[in-house]
Amino acid sequence: MPGNTFGEAFRVTTFGESHGPAVGCVIDGCPPGFPLDLAAVQRQLARRRPGQSRLVSARDEEDRVEVLSGLERESGRTLGTPLAMLVRNEDQRPSAYREWKDAYRPSHADYTYEAKYGIRAWEGGGRASARETVGRVLAGAVAEQLLVARFPGLAIVAWVERVQAIDAAAAIDPAQLTREAVDAHPTRCPSPEHAAQIEQAILAAKSAGDSLGGCVRLQVRGLPPGLGEPVFDKLDALLAQAMLSLPACKAVEVGSGFAGVALSGSAHNDPFAWEGGAVVTRSNRSGGIQGGISNGMPIELRLAFKPTATVLQPQRTIDREGNERELQARGRHDPCVLPRAVPIVEAMAALVLADCWLRQRGQVGDPWPGLATWRPPA
Amino acid sequence: MPGNTFGEAFRVTTFGESHGPAVGCVIDGCPPGFPLDLAAVQRQLARRRPGQSRLVSARDEEDRVEVLSGLERESGRTLGTPLAMLVRNEDQRPSAYREWKDAYRPSHADYTYEAKYGIRAWEGGGRASARETVGRVLAGAVAEQLLVARFPGLAIVAWVERVQAIDAAAAIDPAQLTREAVDAHPTRCPSPEHAAQIEQAILAAKSAGDSLGGCVRLQVRGLPPGLGEPVFDKLDALLAQAMLSLPACKAVEVGSGFAGVALSGSAHNDPFAWEGGAVVTRSNRSGGIQGGISNGMPIELRLAFKPTATVLQPQRTIDREGNERELQARGRHDPCVLPRAVPIVEAMAALVLADCWLRQRGQVGDPWPGLATWRPPA
Amino acid sequence: MPGNTFGEAFRVTTFGESHGPAVGCVIDGCPPGFPLDLAAVQRQLARRRPGQSRLVSARDEEDRVEVLSGLERESGRTLGTPLAMLVRNEDQRPSAYREWKDAYRPSHADYTYEAKYGIRAWEGGGRASARETVGRVLAGAVAEQLLVARFPGLAIVAWVERVQAIDAAAAIDPAQLTREAVDAHPTRCPSPEHAAQIEQAILAAKSAGDSLGGCVRLQVRGLPPGLGEPVFDKLDALLAQAMLSLPACKAVEVGSGFAGVALSGSAHNDPFAWEGGAVVTRSNRSGGIQGGISNGMPIELRLAFKPTATVLQPQRTIDREGNERELQARGRHDPCVLPRAVPIVEAMAALVLADCWLRQRGQVGDPWPGLATWRPPA
Amino acid sequence: MPGNTFGEAFRVTTFGESHGPAVGCVIDGCPPGFPLDLAAVQRQLARRRPGQSRLVSARDEEDRVEVLSGLERESGRTLGTPLAMLVRNEDQRPSAYREWKDAYRPSHADYTYEAKYGIRAWEGGGRASARETVGRVLAGAVAEQLLVARFPGLAIVAWVERVQAIDAAAAIDPAQLTREAVDAHPTRCPSPEHAAQIEQAILAAKSAGDSLGGCVRLQVRGLPPGLGEPVFDKLDALLAQAMLSLPACKAVEVGSGFAGVALSGSAHNDPFAWEGGAVVTRSNRSGGIQGGISNGMPIELRLAFKPTATVLQPQRTIDREGNERELQARGRHDPCVLPRAVPIVEAMAALVLADCWLRQRGQVGDPWPGLATWRPPA
Repeated sequence: MPGNTFGEAFRVTTFGESHGPAVGCVIDGCPPGFPLDLAAVQRQLARRRPGQSRLVSARDEEDRVEVLSGLERESGRTLGTPLAMLVRNEDQRPSAYREWKDAYRPSHADYTYEAKYGIRAWEGGGRASARETVGRVLAGAVAEQLLVARFPGLAIVAWVERVQAIDAAAAIDPAQLTREAVDAHPTRCPSPEHAAQIEQAILAAKSAGDSLGGCVRLQVRGLPPGLGEPVFDKLDALLAQAMLSLPACKAVEVGSGFAGVALSGSAHNDPFAWEGGAVVTRSNRSGGIQGGISNGMPIELRLAFKPTATVLQPQRTIDREGNERELQARGRHDPCVLPRAVPIVEAMAALVLADCWLRQRGQVGDPWPGLATWRPPA
Repeated sequence: MPGNTFGEAFRVTTFGESHGPAVGCVIDGCPPGFPLDLAAVQRQLARRRPGQSRLVSARDEEDRVEVLSGLERESGRTLGTPLAMLVRNEDQRPSAYREWKDAYRPSHADYTYEAKYGIRAWEGGGRASARETVGRVLAGAVAEQLLVARFPGLAIVAWVERVQAIDAAAAIDPAQLTREAVDAHPTRCPSPEHAAQIEQAILAAKSAGDSLGGCVRLQVRGLPPGLGEPVFDKLDALLAQAMLSLPACKAVEVGSGFAGVALSGSAHNDPFAWEGGAVVTRSNRSGGIQGGISNGMPIELRLAFKPTATVLQPQRTIDREGNERELQARGRHDPCVLPRAVPIVEAMAALVLADCWLRQRGQVGDPWPGLATWRPPA
Repeated sequence: MPGNTFGEAFRVTTFGESHGPAVGCVIDGCPPGFPLDLAAVQRQLARRRPGQSRLVSARDEEDRVEVLSGLERESGRTLGTPLAMLVRNEDQRPSAYREWKDAYRPSHADYTYEAKYGIRAWEGGGRASARETVGRVLAGAVAEQLLVARFPGLAIVAWVERVQAIDAAAAIDPAQLTREAVDAHPTRCPSPEHAAQIEQAILAAKSAGDSLGGCVRLQVRGLPPGLGEPVFDKLDALLAQAMLSLPACKAVEVGSGFAGVALSGSAHNDPFAWEGGAVVTRSNRSGGIQGGISNGMPIELRLAFKPTATVLQPQRTIDREGNERELQARGRHDPCVLPRAVPIVEAMAALVLADCWLRQRGQVGDPWPGLATWRPPA
Repeated sequence: MPGNTFGEAFRVTTFGESHGPAVGCVIDGCPPGFPLDLAAVQRQLARRRPGQSRLVSARDEEDRVEVLSGLERESGRTLGTPLAMLVRNEDQRPSAYREWKDAYRPSHADYTYEAKYGIRAWEGGGRASARETVGRVLAGAVAEQLLVARFPGLAIVAWVERVQAIDAAAAIDPAQLTREAVDAHPTRCPSPEHAAQIEQAILAAKSAGDSLGGCVRLQVRGLPPGLGEPVFDKLDALLAQAMLSLPACKAVEVGSGFAGVALSGSAHNDPFAWEGGAVVTRSNRSGGIQGGISNGMPIELRLAFKPTATVLQPQRTIDREGNERELQARGRHDPCVLPRAVPIVEAMAALVLADCWLRQRGQVGDPWPGLATWRPPA
């Protein structure tokens, strides 16, 4: 009944409050015998770390992963048993939150947690804090390694497409985009021109104690056809759940999304063709998914992240007794979560895909029919 | 592992292929002792029925619900045991599909089902057909009755906001919108002026053998604060999964959605206030959900439905052997699924909310803290 | 949360009350492309049917399976979609139960269902009736076909070992026992001498309006090593759950069971050996399962079934208001459930094993390491 | 799909290998606002600790619980978020296992883990070690506190009834048995006379490098009627799963168990009566459970534990290549697991009951009908 676990076959449970002793995850269902690259896990964690640039929160966390179980001591290979990992919380300043102890920060989860539980971890956002995503990134990094080992050439790449009014969509060709290209600029916008503008906008918002939202794009290339559980657990439905489970995410589009409604069916349909010994579609308005199952074309998502709710300006709110108050947040905050959202979005995509793959294996075996004519990326 | 069940506490499993003997559902977790109004279930089913107007598919199905279990014979009250319901498939014309037996209809699930399963129900769309949603509407109608009995005044209302370029958003005030107002026109667009335009557009598309997409809006009024499981099963995340699990749905926005990214945080945040003895927010850019938990304000979603993939025009595709083919669908089709999508969207919302409520009850009891200062709608 | 579904990968949900319109099941997770032998399903159903001999209930049900979904119309192969099956309830005589409407039959579930739900299907036992097992037998018959197709030579055989004081254990060699041998006598006790005694005992109990309990043995031969999820879902733990979920089952032993406690460890341990190119154990006190995982030796269970609670004699009880009453059941009853329990026990074993196998496939693939040196039975 | 999680509403995932960095658990679904008594958790942990007497393993582990998340820092109350707890592994001597790295210890899980996973944590039993039960005891102690707070007077008491041939059943009256009485002797057999004999037998087995099995009894007093999910998740079925998921447990009886088959139905049935304003049964052969639901009478289970597989005597086995070997375990071992099994059995009972209660609350609310005439123990 509770909602801290994601996945059916690759089951990830995250734990930890932002200002408690630790955050982490337990993965149940990690296949055995896999030589896990812990350094790569640590690298992905570093990409979501606060303090990595002046564009993001100054909370200074080293964020070092500790493995508690699931690996063979001598070889580092997975045992097929639960893989438990944690990261200690170090740089906690709960005093910054004390004046909000009895009042509700606007557009945060303070009020709703109290409405549900009657108690909340007021020293920071508790589970509603983005710090909870540490466990997701740990698990996502494991999932991604498994996927790439099974599907060589698979690429899960997210990037910042837009911040507030600065939209780089037209300037970016997703086709060959790599994480290296995305990380070339601390904004994680791969259009240098727009990246510079976004950086300025973020710094200006930071100075003003304000915050900015924007759009993240995700592309998954090299995924074979046939993955995904139809009906309720359609691949796009699970991706939507995964993304909207991220703090601040307010919308998701698959393929043509909202723009697709402007077309008529005869123009919107993706014609099938046979190319290089494989089934392809001439266009990809389906976003790589048809009937909830991957069709071998790139998976394409666009996500909206609202401007961070924490702003360092006076805001009107009420306290627990209903008294109107004007309060102002203090301390560190992310003026724009978009750059740090990129590895988290990738992690959620990896979790969905690893789970789909293992569910698939249980249901129809591996290889499955769609692999017969599938060509992995060159 | 398979994906034909939705919900944790109010668990709905649907079954049935579009051209098999029957479609239906089993609800496990329906609370006991509830006087189910079967006529109301049947009415909601009639709202998704094909053949209800000249705007939708002419497939002539009476769609009469048969209850197999779960009700006390004499009283019609629920027993707390699985509630199994089915609807027979009557007006089947599988011959219309025979020429597509070995070829893939563009933007349908033919290819992906074969890629996954190595077999597909080619006589119609099988599970990928919108006919599968009969089971969802049956279960959703039960869920809604339970919700309204617990939360008097709760209203789950969806409507057609836009079809292709005809956008009625500015002309519709969701605040007091009722299903009766929505159903006043067969397009289910509650702006009479736009409804007339949409009707013409659909009929024109029908004549042309083409199809149209559009947007559906959903509003849930009268839901108390505190509902929803945070982290992975956030209320908005489950709604997103639910909606994107519907055939042809390609995007979902919660609250401010994509438009919200244009604002800065200080402008986007929803200030809390105390009004009439209850907590409210002065704006509702959060769409009624904060941190994945309802805050008592109306829940607001916007959905994109692509134009139906079935068009009665020649289309280029390939067959199972990779040969290029030009084929044309025959027979009945929905030139625009939007009008019939309305009750299905409502059903999915009801399934999510009933499940959240029962999960809530298990976790924190009923009543829960947020009900203390909550006022149901007048 | 509710408990009408069994299995994680091969998920079976049963539905139906004993005196409602129908009983049946939905299987979600049935692998695609399998040529289901419906006649074999019907045969297994006939083995649990009431009225099959004068030893069992005279309720006259033809019990004919109707498939609602999940099979390809022309080929009868599974589609990989939910397989829904039902059996209509025909020979209902609810009037026989009317005087028990407000009183609690001793050792039945009348009182506990009311204590839980506040309502019960008093016209027969509702869900607590053995009639619910129709759905289990349907699903188990499908599961068994899948298992035998994957593991040729697999045999799931149950039999009646004991009824009240008549214990045939010493006279039966399980090694090559077949269902045909078990079915040779309507008692399903494969020792002819004991079968004759048991038949007399059952007929005597029937005349006296009394009932008898006994023991069922189960052996599974030809299962490869490596199946089963350790920790909470150990193969023996799931088998125990499955068996104790059957009406009237009160105890389960795996391998040496209670007798094993009389031995010291050095005598109880099963020495490993290498025989015919495969790993075997010299004894099988483990009952084919070690650490919750199959070791390739026969799986051996012994089950206790209490005497049926329905006896046609006056019994002291109370009604809903707490008044003491003396009441007597009327009509048809099973003086001894043991003969009919045999196919149900086999069905539950098949459900557990099919689920373990598909979960296994998801986790470690198929084939898995233990198959390398495994030899299927000759 | 994997099997390291127990429960639907009170979900416990354990992690950790016997010789890895730590063992522990994550509880998802712990109700909020509960003042957890960590000292009581630690006490229950001390009851399963090795090294607590000369009758058990000399492995010297302090076994101190560390809470990682889920508690409010200042108050120690539960937040309703995942409660993660761990215990570090300290006194590890993996070298004792090196000679078994390539050979299979008889009646251990070495061979079956390799057959399933192709890899195993050979430095000790890994997940198959009884050390895994640390996480169960942690979670069980939390579950028990929650249960007792809701159902004052609830008592979950297990004890050693028999070791090898020394059977104290006739000398023990379960009716008022307390944990203090059970713990009065390190054997945890509450008959002083038998306890002394058992102690001698265990010490003799220890000297001989051999091991002993026995029976544990469990009684739950003060549980109200109406708890348990019928059909597959019957209360007795889940208890059976829970107990058979424990290392070395080979059999479970509920109520009359195997002995019940000797009676006819008229003698076996438990007559209902009205006593002190509550429904009771005159006998309790049902073991407190009817139709899978509690009836308010004490729940009674009897369990068989085989003699520990680790014996310090030469044993015949094979290695991974199939070569016959004679090997002898070295180091520390439990000559009899029974005394330490007692708190683990209690923990599993608490996990089952807490889960049933929260599932119940979700389904039918709390209070439910059966509480109306229920009287908690004086």
